[in-house]
Amino acid sequence: MADHRVVIVGGGFGGLYAVRALSGAPVSVTLVDRRNFHLFQPLLYQVATGALSPANIAKPLRSILAGQANARVLMAEVRDFDLDRRVVHLDTGDIEYDSLVVASGSEPHYFSHDDWQAVAPGLKTVEDALEMRRRIFLAFEEAERSPGQRPGLLTFVVVGGGPTGVELAGALAEIATTIVRDYRTIRAKEVSIVLIEAAARVLPSYPNELSRKAELALRKLGVEVRTGASVAAIDAQGLDLTSDGQSSRLPASTVLWAAGVRSSSLGTRLAKAAGIETDRQGRLAVGPQLNLQNHPEVFVVGDLAHVEQDGAPLPAVAPVAMQEGRHAANVIRGRLSGIETPAFRYRDRGAMATIGRSAAVADLGLIKLSGFVGWLTWLFIHLLYLAGFENRLLVLTQWAWNYFGRNRSARLITRSEATEKGSGRL
Amino acid sequence: MADHRVVIVGGGFGGLYAVRALSGAPVSVTLVDRRNFHLFQPLLYQVATGALSPANIAKPLRSILAGQANARVLMAEVRDFDLDRRVVHLDTGDIEYDSLVVASGSEPHYFSHDDWQAVAPGLKTVEDALEMRRRIFLAFEEAERSPGQRPGLLTFVVVGGGPTGVELAGALAEIATTIVRDYRTIRAKEVSIVLIEAAARVLPSYPNELSRKAELALRKLGVEVRTGASVAAIDAQGLDLTSDGQSSRLPASTVLWAAGVRSSSLGTRLAKAAGIETDRQGRLAVGPQLNLQNHPEVFVVGDLAHVEQDGAPLPAVAPVAMQEGRHAANVIRGRLSGIETPAFRYRDRGAMATIGRSAAVADLGLIKLSGFVGWLTWLFIHLLYLAGFENRLLVLTQWAWNYFGRNRSARLITRSEATEKGSGRL
Repeated sequence: MADHRVVIVGGGFGGLYAVRALSGAPVSVTLVDRRNFHLFQPLLYQVATGALSPANIAKPLRSILAGQANARVLMAEVRDFDLDRRVVHLDTGDIEYDSLVVASGSEPHYFSHDDWQAVAPGLKTVEDALEMRRRIFLAFEEAERSPGQRPGLLTFVVVGGGPTGVELAGALAEIATTIVRDYRTIRAKEVSIVLIEAAARVLPSYPNELSRKAELALRKLGVEVRTGASVAAIDAQGLDLTSDGQSSRLPASTVLWAAGVRSSSLGTRLAKAAGIETDRQGRLAVGPQLNLQNHPEVFVVGDLAHVEQDGAPLPAVAPVAMQEGRHAANVIRGRLSGIETPAFRYRDRGAMATIGRSAAVADLGLIKLSGFVGWLTWLFIHLLYLAGFENRLLVLTQWAWNYFGRNRSARLITRSEATEKGSGRL
Repeated sequence: MADHRVVIVGGGFGGLYAVRALSGAPVSVTLVDRRNFHLFQPLLYQVATGALSPANIAKPLRSILAGQANARVLMAEVRDFDLDRRVVHLDTGDIEYDSLVVASGSEPHYFSHDDWQAVAPGLKTVEDALEMRRRIFLAFEEAERSPGQRPGLLTFVVVGGGPTGVELAGALAEIATTIVRDYRTIRAKEVSIVLIEAAARVLPSYPNELSRKAELALRKLGVEVRTGASVAAIDAQGLDLTSDGQSSRLPASTVLWAAGVRSSSLGTRLAKAAGIETDRQGRLAVGPQLNLQNHPEVFVVGDLAHVEQDGAPLPAVAPVAMQEGRHAANVIRGRLSGIETPAFRYRDRGAMATIGRSAAVADLGLIKLSGFVGWLTWLFIHLLYLAGFENRLLVLTQWAWNYFGRNRSARLITRSEATEKGSGRL
């Protein structure tokens, strides 16, 4: 067709915002994703801890874009890129483009220890969250059965003190105080939640003051915060830690990984196709218009993009991805009408993290919130972003219920090894 | 301890009602289940069609029984029974009992064609439902990609015209009319839903009049109802059918099995341990007190029990399991206080099936409802039974939304083969 063909790879925040920003433009947009839904990753930890169901924080891409006439959704997996012929190779065939936006996101990064993935699952996909959920609640079941192994079974370690790690640890601490009442013999004080952070403070990317408040809130919830500690080894029985020269052993049957991400494997293929290097996290350096130097029609946004601002690379968080996606779309629009788009600049609207049921820290630039007010703000902003009214409604109902009922409604152990049919079926 | 030890195997309707009916009795109850949650199976088809999330229709057994002082929950798998030593062998060790209630339920029955399971999944577990959901929505995605293969890809066949089959077919027909709008090229009339029933009418166990109304409602939704047709073969491309001597081929990439159940494999082991035969569905014949002739302290309830009433075995439905579970509990109570419990008699409070968004048929004995009133009754009664207030609230919210918004919120394709990490992770 005569239209300018835009192919967008990835239906996360970056890709989705790019598609939306192209609404009404004289282009035909194809959004390619291997999943059929957009996932609201900031709340994934709530699925991992049994507070929400996957469907509460996910929405089919087709329904999100049903109203956008110039966009179509293609559920397919990208195999490779041919930038010279302007073709993307999919498992279902080839697709040509005039402009390409790659927003394939990131996955848990184990640095040089990929073998840790089996014993310390990360948190990026619905499957990750359900696997975490399974391990967490299975540990409680086993602890109820075998009191002898409780210390290890009831020690839950979160590696990484960024927002995800802090939120995970906070949610885990709540489980200890709430669902424990359902068990006949386990007592809350038998459960210990440990948060490991290599830096000197949790939430290193936040202002000092909020880090301190977050750590305080975590300790109040009973979380043992170990800053300045790095992981030397992880196995099914626990971790070896190093803290200022001293090494120690921490027995724990459940270790959750929130220590970092690297760009998805697609990043490597794209870099190879473009003949450029990636940074240590596998991200591709892009110019002020978020496109590749030698292929200005190829844009990279979100966790996959290495964008320097004020001397530091932008963090791999949703707001950055959203703004980058929108910017790429604007550049494409501008080119079609011969308008020069100003260079991309990230406008930080603030960062926040929630700690348990009723506390959160928020850095909204001028205002810094914490405690209950911070939590409400966090709740409001998340619901604001949550794709789809229904989800908002349901999530709110669920939260209200969890908040007042101290409930954990979604703590199902699916695909439990204890089921004959479960394994491999789900 | 001095208490009379009751072990109950299975946390479905039969087992759960037995535990509850023993509340306050001078016994110590141990509920053994390989899953940590009770599943409201009558609504499983709503998960399979993306209307509800698993957590909406499931509730952790521990929270259901948290208030019952004399009951504990053990998440374990039964390996075998030793009825003479009164011991149940679990994967986690042995457990002794004075009274045993086995309510391990049933699984899809493929008669002599177990190989059909791979191409025609049944609907008994959460995993079953998510697998159905995955196949249904994956078929739509593939149809959107490859118009050439649409006839097969967009033909959904439900085998079995009982309540589950009718409800599944009805829900599928809705999907055709609702979510199709999210696809750019698929048109509703390209989708065909076929319901196969070997008997002369759908809902054979219902009064004639309601069968007719159900079939009418299904046809109104666009479901092709083929009664008197039996399945000769199923493969990945479709089915071979036989209808009054004539055999025909029906191309379909998605075949869902609702044609029958047989008792779980535990039934075979229990029968062997008791040295008795099972019926064709693998059920154990029990006496008027629902216990085994040669082991009066062993009770069998629910889908696992073969109970004759008025010359016919009772059907494998929730109300029967509930009443049988309660009866077994009463017999145990009675024995402890030397009271003779009258023989079990099932009191049929009616049966109902829903057909799509706003029609249902209900046989409440004297009253026979259909259409919207039937649907409301069905909704009300299901919500009434649904374990846990929160679930009721959420399910109602979700339903209200689906009803007015014609939405399918939970149509996520998880563990999709199109994901790198998905396979085997979930």
